[in-house]
Amino acid sequence: MTERPDALLLAITDWDPTPWLDRFRRLLPDRAIVTGEDSFDPASIRYAAAWKHRPGSLAGLPNLEAIFSLGAGVDHLVGDPGLPSAPILRVVDRDLTERMSEYVVLHCLMHLRKGWTYAQRQARGIWEDDDDQPAAREVRVGIMGLGVLGGDAACKLKVMGFDVAGWSRSRRRLDGIATYAGEAELDAFLSRTDILVVLLPLTPETRGVLNAGLFGRLARDGRLGGPILINAGRGGLQVEADILAALREGTLKAATLDVFETEPLPASSLLWSHPAVQVTPHNAAMSDPDAIASAIAGQIRRHEAGEAFVNAVDPGRGY
Amino acid sequence: MTERPDALLLAITDWDPTPWLDRFRRLLPDRAIVTGEDSFDPASIRYAAAWKHRPGSLAGLPNLEAIFSLGAGVDHLVGDPGLPSAPILRVVDRDLTERMSEYVVLHCLMHLRKGWTYAQRQARGIWEDDDDQPAAREVRVGIMGLGVLGGDAACKLKVMGFDVAGWSRSRRRLDGIATYAGEAELDAFLSRTDILVVLLPLTPETRGVLNAGLFGRLARDGRLGGPILINAGRGGLQVEADILAALREGTLKAATLDVFETEPLPASSLLWSHPAVQVTPHNAAMSDPDAIASAIAGQIRRHEAGEAFVNAVDPGRGY
Repeated sequence: MTERPDALLLAITDWDPTPWLDRFRRLLPDRAIVTGEDSFDPASIRYAAAWKHRPGSLAGLPNLEAIFSLGAGVDHLVGDPGLPSAPILRVVDRDLTERMSEYVVLHCLMHLRKGWTYAQRQARGIWEDDDDQPAAREVRVGIMGLGVLGGDAACKLKVMGFDVAGWSRSRRRLDGIATYAGEAELDAFLSRTDILVVLLPLTPETRGVLNAGLFGRLARDGRLGGPILINAGRGGLQVEADILAALREGTLKAATLDVFETEPLPASSLLWSHPAVQVTPHNAAMSDPDAIASAIAGQIRRHEAGEAFVNAVDPGRGY
Repeated sequence: MTERPDALLLAITDWDPTPWLDRFRRLLPDRAIVTGEDSFDPASIRYAAAWKHRPGSLAGLPNLEAIFSLGAGVDHLVGDPGLPSAPILRVVDRDLTERMSEYVVLHCLMHLRKGWTYAQRQARGIWEDDDDQPAAREVRVGIMGLGVLGGDAACKLKVMGFDVAGWSRSRRRLDGIATYAGEAELDAFLSRTDILVVLLPLTPETRGVLNAGLFGRLARDGRLGGPILINAGRGGLQVEADILAALREGTLKAATLDVFETEPLPASSLLWSHPAVQVTPHNAAMSDPDAIASAIAGQIRRHEAGEAFVNAVDPGRGY
């Protein structure tokens, strides 16, 4: 008697696999959960759950039906030329979405309300108010990337009063928010943007898109004294030498960065100590591992009950 | 022929009166606008517009029909025993409301997302993420004071995902937000509160209400490691010696203060350099002078067309 392939392969680097093994064993008690360290029959693997897997390590699994990403973004999967052709399923998790919006709204408000300036004044014992405090409605936030994360952040920024617009490769509609699409409308979008919030996926097309040329197209007439960049997408989107040069030349006024070309950000990076740069350690949207594991277990259950997978990556677009 | 009294008296200390004179002269071109420095017939004054007026300086105006406050809060008026009995009208200005909510949401998010901790880590070049990052929905914000400002802040905090409740002296209802009322329900409110946001008016009843006794009633079991105080109401609400003691003893974990017993905050205050205290220079909700002057001119026009004043202070409650 041949058993039906039923195992889940956990393909993780960077993170400790143990808590993930525990979660999946608890949620899917009737099947084998293995890691690359275990010896297993490749034909027994029906699903893979991956985060920065070793490239090539998902090849040669003849019965693979789906590859689940364990975190936001799928560039770690799509970039592997040895990836099998099974559908790649994104994490769409309410928790992750909400945390990203917390981060985006927090840092837009910090720039609007000059929070870093007042912290510096406090450190020097200075009681001094700026007369020129624009209201949120006088500040134009532009969100690049209008997926689930960008859409949620846009709506919450609008509730806070900001003048919000969004840009995406293909047209998205968002209630009460101006949206721009494609290369043809990028200039119109950038030239009305005071705070650029980047939540793009990393694809061959978007790699390095945050460069000197783009910064030079942002609004020069805003109320914050110059354009501000907030990148909470992927480090590969940005050219850090160009960010530093733009800050030096005044093309950018400030930058809040959660992601970097190399992570952890090397000690030698000038970003660490730049007075107009805020560095956070790639934790804008730490997803709740319990919520993610549980969403994956739900997809598996529904798939086995005959339903279609949701949140599948379009292999042509790469996100 | 006796002219009908028609003048507006501008009664300001602390602020430069000139821009206010200019605004009112532009908005109300057909009547005299005077200050205490001018010589004028007391019987000619029909309205007063005041901010921290010299106590007693509004007495002896026989034809006074209304006193407009030029900023949020009316304690500067109500506290003057020589104030005439004309109605006192509060500023209710969309701009002021929105700015207060910007400040409240910003500082709740800074505490939720440990923004000050990450800024300190950046200053030391440390890439280190906390594993324990509660979601907004796991953090209970309690708003004391549910007037226009408190109500707006509550709704926006709820949109950001926080678990929000409110307390006010008399019962208020807010869609989807638990509200508590009066002394009888204060304990239930405080014991479920991780971040206490204070937007109370300053009255003889509320003076010094933020003291050791109250801090000791806040939740001890929250996800932020101890209760946090955000006071953007009035400095007279707080006992600063008690805040410092509560921080020392761990009864409070942190405090964000926009208002102080004495303003500007004296250089000798230990709040300036306390690592768990954020000081801002009473600018949480700087109102837009144009919007305020225009709202006052609107009240005057409608009053003279026979309509009732809106936003009148209840002299019994003092707000």
